[in-house]
Amino acid sequence: MTIEEFQQKIDETYGERDAQRGLESTFMWLVEEVGELARALRSESHERKVEEFSDVLAWLTTTASLAGVDMAEAAARFADACPKCGESPCACGRRRE
Amino acid sequence: MTIEEFQQKIDETYGERDAQRGLESTFMWLVEEVGELARALRSESHERKVEEFSDVLAWLTTTASLAGVDMAEAAARFADACPKCGESPCACGRRRE
Repeated sequence: MTIEEFQQKIDETYGERDAQRGLESTFMWLVEEVGELARALRSESHERKVEEFSDVLAWLTTTASLAGVDMAEAAARFADACPKCGESPCACGRRRE
Repeated sequence: MTIEEFQQKIDETYGERDAQRGLESTFMWLVEEVGELARALRSESHERKVEEFSDVLAWLTTTASLAGVDMAEAAARFADACPKCGESPCACGRRRE
C-alpha cells in the first residue's frame, strides 16, 4: 500500500467524523495513542505492538488531513537520504544538533 | 512510495544509529517530535507542518523497526475499513467506546 492510498482510506473511513471533532481534539487522541504505544512497547505481545503502531499511524494521518498535509509529500522528505545532511546512512546524527 | 519502501529507507538511513541508541531512547525522540508537531499545528507555515508530520512519521517508523514491527503490516489493519466495526465510513465511532 502506498502512503497516499493509506491516507485516502483513512479519510474515507474517518474523515467526516474527525472533521466534526476538529484538529485540536483529534490531536489529543493522537497523543493518547502515543501513550498506549508506550505501554504496548513494554508488553510481550507482538500483536499489541502492531495494533498500537497502526493506531498511532492512523491518528497521525487523520491529523495531517485536518491540517491540510499530504503524508506522501511529508514522507518524500526522507525518500533519498537524511534531509539534514543529504546522506544515507545519515552522517550528521540528524536534527537539532 | 509504499509504506514498506519508506520503512526500508528509514532503516537504511538511520537504522544503525537508532539501534545503538536503543528503543526507549528512540521512543523519547518520537515523543519530543510529537511536541514539535503540536507547536507546528499552531503556526501558519504549511512547510513547518509538512516537516513535523514527516519527522513524527520517521521516528514512529524507526521505533517500529526497533520493536520488530512491520509498518506495512500495521497499516494493513486499516486497508479495508475500520478494524473495530468493519465498515468504511466507520459506523462505530471507533476505539475504546
